[in-house]
Amino acid sequence: MVRELSHFVDGELRAGTSGEFSDVFNPSTGEIAARVPLASHSEVAAAISTAEEAQHEWGALNPQRRARVLMRFLRLIERDIDELAEMLSREHGKTLADSKGDVQRGVEVIEFALGAPHLLKGEYSTNAGSDGIDVYSMRQPLGVVAGITPFNFPAMIPLWKMGPALAAGNAFILKPSERDPSVPLHLAQLLTEAGLPDGVLQVLNGDKRAVDAILTDKRVQAVGFVGSTPIARYIYETAAANGKRAQCFGGAKNHMIVMPDADLDQAADALVGAGYGSAGERCMAISVAVPVGKATADALAAKLTERVKQLRVGDTHDERADYGPLITRDAVDRVTHYIEAGVEEGASLLVDGRGLTVEGFEEGFYLGPSLFDYVTTDMSVYRDEVFGPVLFIARAATYEEALRLPSEHDYGNGVSIFTRDGDTARDFAARVNVGMVGVNVPIPVPIAYHTFGGWKESGFGDLNQHGPDSFRFYTKTKTVTSRWPSGIKEGASFVIPTMQ
Amino acid sequence: MVRELSHFVDGELRAGTSGEFSDVFNPSTGEIAARVPLASHSEVAAAISTAEEAQHEWGALNPQRRARVLMRFLRLIERDIDELAEMLSREHGKTLADSKGDVQRGVEVIEFALGAPHLLKGEYSTNAGSDGIDVYSMRQPLGVVAGITPFNFPAMIPLWKMGPALAAGNAFILKPSERDPSVPLHLAQLLTEAGLPDGVLQVLNGDKRAVDAILTDKRVQAVGFVGSTPIARYIYETAAANGKRAQCFGGAKNHMIVMPDADLDQAADALVGAGYGSAGERCMAISVAVPVGKATADALAAKLTERVKQLRVGDTHDERADYGPLITRDAVDRVTHYIEAGVEEGASLLVDGRGLTVEGFEEGFYLGPSLFDYVTTDMSVYRDEVFGPVLFIARAATYEEALRLPSEHDYGNGVSIFTRDGDTARDFAARVNVGMVGVNVPIPVPIAYHTFGGWKESGFGDLNQHGPDSFRFYTKTKTVTSRWPSGIKEGASFVIPTMQ
Amino acid sequence: MVRELSHFVDGELRAGTSGEFSDVFNPSTGEIAARVPLASHSEVAAAISTAEEAQHEWGALNPQRRARVLMRFLRLIERDIDELAEMLSREHGKTLADSKGDVQRGVEVIEFALGAPHLLKGEYSTNAGSDGIDVYSMRQPLGVVAGITPFNFPAMIPLWKMGPALAAGNAFILKPSERDPSVPLHLAQLLTEAGLPDGVLQVLNGDKRAVDAILTDKRVQAVGFVGSTPIARYIYETAAANGKRAQCFGGAKNHMIVMPDADLDQAADALVGAGYGSAGERCMAISVAVPVGKATADALAAKLTERVKQLRVGDTHDERADYGPLITRDAVDRVTHYIEAGVEEGASLLVDGRGLTVEGFEEGFYLGPSLFDYVTTDMSVYRDEVFGPVLFIARAATYEEALRLPSEHDYGNGVSIFTRDGDTARDFAARVNVGMVGVNVPIPVPIAYHTFGGWKESGFGDLNQHGPDSFRFYTKTKTVTSRWPSGIKEGASFVIPTMQ
Amino acid sequence: MVRELSHFVDGELRAGTSGEFSDVFNPSTGEIAARVPLASHSEVAAAISTAEEAQHEWGALNPQRRARVLMRFLRLIERDIDELAEMLSREHGKTLADSKGDVQRGVEVIEFALGAPHLLKGEYSTNAGSDGIDVYSMRQPLGVVAGITPFNFPAMIPLWKMGPALAAGNAFILKPSERDPSVPLHLAQLLTEAGLPDGVLQVLNGDKRAVDAILTDKRVQAVGFVGSTPIARYIYETAAANGKRAQCFGGAKNHMIVMPDADLDQAADALVGAGYGSAGERCMAISVAVPVGKATADALAAKLTERVKQLRVGDTHDERADYGPLITRDAVDRVTHYIEAGVEEGASLLVDGRGLTVEGFEEGFYLGPSLFDYVTTDMSVYRDEVFGPVLFIARAATYEEALRLPSEHDYGNGVSIFTRDGDTARDFAARVNVGMVGVNVPIPVPIAYHTFGGWKESGFGDLNQHGPDSFRFYTKTKTVTSRWPSGIKEGASFVIPTMQ
Repeated sequence: MVRELSHFVDGELRAGTSGEFSDVFNPSTGEIAARVPLASHSEVAAAISTAEEAQHEWGALNPQRRARVLMRFLRLIERDIDELAEMLSREHGKTLADSKGDVQRGVEVIEFALGAPHLLKGEYSTNAGSDGIDVYSMRQPLGVVAGITPFNFPAMIPLWKMGPALAAGNAFILKPSERDPSVPLHLAQLLTEAGLPDGVLQVLNGDKRAVDAILTDKRVQAVGFVGSTPIARYIYETAAANGKRAQCFGGAKNHMIVMPDADLDQAADALVGAGYGSAGERCMAISVAVPVGKATADALAAKLTERVKQLRVGDTHDERADYGPLITRDAVDRVTHYIEAGVEEGASLLVDGRGLTVEGFEEGFYLGPSLFDYVTTDMSVYRDEVFGPVLFIARAATYEEALRLPSEHDYGNGVSIFTRDGDTARDFAARVNVGMVGVNVPIPVPIAYHTFGGWKESGFGDLNQHGPDSFRFYTKTKTVTSRWPSGIKEGASFVIPTMQ
Repeated sequence: MVRELSHFVDGELRAGTSGEFSDVFNPSTGEIAARVPLASHSEVAAAISTAEEAQHEWGALNPQRRARVLMRFLRLIERDIDELAEMLSREHGKTLADSKGDVQRGVEVIEFALGAPHLLKGEYSTNAGSDGIDVYSMRQPLGVVAGITPFNFPAMIPLWKMGPALAAGNAFILKPSERDPSVPLHLAQLLTEAGLPDGVLQVLNGDKRAVDAILTDKRVQAVGFVGSTPIARYIYETAAANGKRAQCFGGAKNHMIVMPDADLDQAADALVGAGYGSAGERCMAISVAVPVGKATADALAAKLTERVKQLRVGDTHDERADYGPLITRDAVDRVTHYIEAGVEEGASLLVDGRGLTVEGFEEGFYLGPSLFDYVTTDMSVYRDEVFGPVLFIARAATYEEALRLPSEHDYGNGVSIFTRDGDTARDFAARVNVGMVGVNVPIPVPIAYHTFGGWKESGFGDLNQHGPDSFRFYTKTKTVTSRWPSGIKEGASFVIPTMQ
Repeated sequence: MVRELSHFVDGELRAGTSGEFSDVFNPSTGEIAARVPLASHSEVAAAISTAEEAQHEWGALNPQRRARVLMRFLRLIERDIDELAEMLSREHGKTLADSKGDVQRGVEVIEFALGAPHLLKGEYSTNAGSDGIDVYSMRQPLGVVAGITPFNFPAMIPLWKMGPALAAGNAFILKPSERDPSVPLHLAQLLTEAGLPDGVLQVLNGDKRAVDAILTDKRVQAVGFVGSTPIARYIYETAAANGKRAQCFGGAKNHMIVMPDADLDQAADALVGAGYGSAGERCMAISVAVPVGKATADALAAKLTERVKQLRVGDTHDERADYGPLITRDAVDRVTHYIEAGVEEGASLLVDGRGLTVEGFEEGFYLGPSLFDYVTTDMSVYRDEVFGPVLFIARAATYEEALRLPSEHDYGNGVSIFTRDGDTARDFAARVNVGMVGVNVPIPVPIAYHTFGGWKESGFGDLNQHGPDSFRFYTKTKTVTSRWPSGIKEGASFVIPTMQ
Repeated sequence: MVRELSHFVDGELRAGTSGEFSDVFNPSTGEIAARVPLASHSEVAAAISTAEEAQHEWGALNPQRRARVLMRFLRLIERDIDELAEMLSREHGKTLADSKGDVQRGVEVIEFALGAPHLLKGEYSTNAGSDGIDVYSMRQPLGVVAGITPFNFPAMIPLWKMGPALAAGNAFILKPSERDPSVPLHLAQLLTEAGLPDGVLQVLNGDKRAVDAILTDKRVQAVGFVGSTPIARYIYETAAANGKRAQCFGGAKNHMIVMPDADLDQAADALVGAGYGSAGERCMAISVAVPVGKATADALAAKLTERVKQLRVGDTHDERADYGPLITRDAVDRVTHYIEAGVEEGASLLVDGRGLTVEGFEEGFYLGPSLFDYVTTDMSVYRDEVFGPVLFIARAATYEEALRLPSEHDYGNGVSIFTRDGDTARDFAARVNVGMVGVNVPIPVPIAYHTFGGWKESGFGDLNQHGPDSFRFYTKTKTVTSRWPSGIKEGASFVIPTMQ
């Protein structure tokens, strides 16, 4: 008998009623860990109704009181951190340390959202226009908003979405990945324990039907999404066609430029961590290493080969493991096909991770680390997001060529450069056509109080995630222009008529 | 021989090559004043190419230098203000005073855009994340952006769009209304005279084909629109489907609540100005008066009737005219049909403006002022935007009923309340579900350094026009995370390898 | 044997070494509750040395880590709230409910200070000046800063000062009032428990010698003060003469205008609460009621008289008490002399609070509530801050006269107006020459994320307390202008010389 | 007969009435160019009275209208730029190109001040505290404020002070240097021509008596100063003792660190420009070169010696001159004494500029360029500000020693580092204890929209010059807390009583 998960609606776990389910695996063992109900259109609609109702009081609360609920929520996450990490690792497969990091990066956005009272301030101008006219603005909550989040960060991305949305006074509909729904469900329970009124956060599990139910419901004012680019495009377009605001973050192909003056050991260490960590299933993973000049490339390839061969793949409880299984068997197959394609397209396979078996976990979704050299821009393995434990070396003869690679790639999420030279770093940061830049930092995820957002095919919409932008996305501006006719202060005696 | 207008491309007026034209009328006389070329897909594509090229240098300029071009532009507008007003009135039909106001409200946004160097600042955090890590952000121009603007403010809306877009370092493609294109063309010439590099502003006249050419061109990063709601929806959806950012402002049905304690003469004056000014062809025109209580309603209806009967309609050179012709014969017919519908639906027509002829201008597109009482929410004249010189009285028994009317209307652009009572004004401003609110101000257009944006069917997107939001819309955030390996400061002697 | 208090230095309570002490009374009983050591010049100097040392690491910490210490501090205050309130009431005399409010208003500023990572951001401009030049700013901590705080809010004001100062990365020297030092000492212990490194917060008890030791020490970069105006002036001047920055908040004489259209019961309730709460020992207490017009004044005087006569004075544990004892016997005498002066100067004493004895607490420092009518601007009781349970009615014939009273008074801390009329409220708020304005709010203390500061003789310096200003006060701006010579990116091979 | 200058009061040039005068020299020729009246206490008091009167209307104007006056002012400066430069050079002695730069850097702050409408916005919070409470803030002008400005930038510093002060709605009292008062007087006339109401800007020439008259006048709310540190201290202390806000900027000893990896030719060029430009009479001049390592020092000393020997000193009309005369004969003597002291103290005089005569201008106040090597921290020439054409080389063995030099110097105005290394630049910018930092930029004056302010003995007060800080300095915050009793919206019929 497989365990059956539920939705979280109106302050409580609630069984699905559609009769449809999806299997949730334990990627470390390959076993089915649970099954999750898929919400029907009417379940989504009902949850939105409750949310709409609940939002009125929540949105009218002064923002410091809302922030205090989040402050209590932080304490409860701290209390349950081990349980959350275990739950996350079991369904996702990442190492326990990585799972704690997943929760922690989400926590930081909740910490940022504690500043809601300040971040929600409008502007006030007196004597604007002409004498006696005041103009001021308020940022009001949108009402019911939604987040559709991916499997690879089942704690972080839901927290990034719900933190600012709730702090700003909205009700929030979360449709987490059906691959690893337990952590979002637990977070919802913690929020209720922290004092969030029932109905303000609704977690609905589901597939495309649930997504479409959200996208076409007129009462949902905004949708935030993180996932692959085709789905990001679909959601951006469909949300817009339904008059909503949307911010949709998609795939990536993050490059790391290694200049001849870089410390190559440092660069190689960074590449291995950023390329294979979490089995490469991160939108900010480094996928392409770009050494500049032949000498740099040869040395870097050698150092990488040595390091990659020593990587240890293990189940989530293996404390010495560098990374764990992929999310599904399909994912293993997809990445394997890309490795084959890389070989066929003529890239040089320095390390081959195919066919790995982890002892005692023979049915787990494991894949060893692969490393390619001499990858070129015409290859599918260069153009596509592989999303697995594969690192590609694309050699550049000069800095300008290296700069062009990420700038001209369809994706524009993150990019990094390793150099000691101030000029090179500055020129690169200013000119590269990518949204998030690292200088001697392999994974340039901005801290919570700055904002996260890729460019080109990696991001759609005009406001980023977390940081001040997130409060702009989840609120609407109301502007008031005010003037008063002369009244009681002149000493006039007037009688106010009654209304019929 | 009718005068033939042109496009403005690469710093000069350029004749159309598609062979297709649209007539530009003089609404005061009904005559064809000129004909305007309609750009083909390839003309649009070529203009975008030139713009893309020109943007690189413009975008790299320090923002104070860009602001100085706008400062010279302001001087030239001041120099040509009479010519611009004449040109505007001739093609649009509004009075000369109104045309000057049209230019002036645009000028104010250019004045605001002079603050670009300050408004484009990013944020800087030191020792973020962990020791020695800095995180900072830049706001970079998007590249080529576009504006599609309506006939009713041929100076103001183009200036609202191009001011922040250019100040932020973008190249700008303007597709103005084909009804009154001369003013935008003249403004483009003034910008060139002011020192704007060729190609940075391109004005392309056209119809839906030009619009679609803009919307589907991958190089156009963002589209700003003002016009009717169906077109706003179309552009928002199509821009999104093409991965662009968009802000689209649509129609309106602006209410003005008149409380029993209001000064009724003041309220009646305000209603007449805001209802009939510019023949009601303003998205911020007041279209529905909502007196609260029977006594208020009866008194207000009487005061309005008296005033509306005295309104003078005349050609644009008639200095005593309160308003001039509508934009086209079609517009006159459309509004006339609404008046007929209002009568049929059971509203009470207190003043009937149909059938007006202005002596000496018998072929002009005139329509006298109409006033309806007892309009109810089920009538088409209440639900639809009429966009003509017609004011509707919708009576409310109580304040709560009056608050519900604009809150529940599909449109949510502007709304106003007239009262002396602080409590009522505050409650109304806080609760009404409309984006721009006036308190004893009939037309609550926020000043240029605050932002303009309606809610619900009146606005699509998450960032408003002018004010700080406009700089957010026309720029993208790049976030840099930076750390340095220990270098020369430790006294190390190291040799930087050469590149092969 | 009287209990002996201590200082708090380098993470622990530390006995005084000067051999000098001051008595701490329990105002409810009149007994000596403890004695507090008075720090010598050398004790202050030593504490500053430790603080200077401790600040380096604290200031270099990333601000989110500092905020987390404050977050834990909030939990500990919540845990100890009853103990803190009891401690506060015992030494100050205010009611327990009032003591909890004292702590709570301080807590809110700590909550605000959690936003430090965002509030400490500098600005970043790229391509400023000319091509390739970047300009950016950081807000760095000042180093060692100090706060000198008054007896009347022994929790709130220290928290207002230390919260932003510590969050910004400074070490903080607190010299609390020697009348009620136990609460600040306990708060310091809680901060240590919350993880604040030793030495970052030092609490030194003392009198003028300790103050002067702080003011003349070159290592103290900034001083924040709240207290009486003569001392505020002295500290502002002395700090400036020693090159420090200073923000000094002094006395008050807060007026409340009552317009004829106000709800007089509401106004009278508000006046009684704001006038007699905490025995009038609040810088934001209302001291002068200004009814406009004779009818208003007569009615208000009657309503006040009735209410004031019913006020109950009791010891801090009397749950039905409206207020408790004054801080010292001297304070009772000083206020009593003002009541005598009021009578002599010709004001009309409607209620006489002199000579009150509380049964069972005959030695306590009690004073009954007094109410004067017909107070005029030439009287000392109008000009001076009385700081006791006395309310003065100063009648105004017109609104303009009422507006002039607070505007022309030497003090300019807070002021309030009660009216229903939007025009009057707006005109008053815009024109009154006072720093904090209430509209139908008797005690206009701004919330923590806005800022607190009086004008004229009530405040010296250019930055306010709490809100964003507090982070500006406790940090200094460093601005960097950066450009890079062409380097490794051009492919140059160069050898970096070694240093001799 | 020497030309007699005047004051500028109430919109016109006005002769002095004190009967006391000071000579204004032409430093190029040594001749007396004019004499300037020294204002008496009563002249100052009268000017303040007029200013106080004029401020009311100016302060109540909407800020965009004030900005338009400044926009016209910019046009007039552009028109008169040659005349202003000639006037400035004649009285100051700097080259014409340098004089134009002096005006231009002032113009940039006026350009920044055009953003006043945005920069003066307050903050607005709705539902703060508890339901129905709004809190908002306004930034109101201070009233009458003053600026006391130095001889070395007679256009720039007055413009830095008056631009934000006037844009914020204050009246401004300018006490320019009595050495070169003609440019400030001309600027005042241009402002009047631009539409500034009479009395809003008053220019009073004078000496310490005028300064004291300003400092002790209760009606002056704030004083901005730039000059030497002893005077800055005096003004800061005296202003504070009189309850005013003050920002006082003093002397400097700016170091430039030259790292071994720097381009030494570039560094040497930068040092010569920054060290001798304007005869070294700039608070941002580089005075101390700090080469790191013996090899760097030897090479740099050689390059500097060669360049310094080729510097050309000439009168202001000599287009080939690198710099002109000093401001007075006293200044020449003072700098000469420092050169003698340097020799006596044991520094090595590589180039001796004493005794220079410029042909045809034998009475001019000229001094040739001097260069010292082996300067150490115990020498007076290292500790004191010399303010003349002398550059000192202080050798450092390591980076850490080089970092300590400016960090431990009493002055903390500007500092610069030349390096190619990102790590070194970042570490230096983060750690150096100086307010304005240049990275490969010799004179790190921040652009107008950032802020200017030195640390330690170079700056007193908590808000900087220009940039957003300047608007904070010249305004005071008023915070309003507002709530409304239920009124007309409930349908209540109430009669408002009349006032007696």
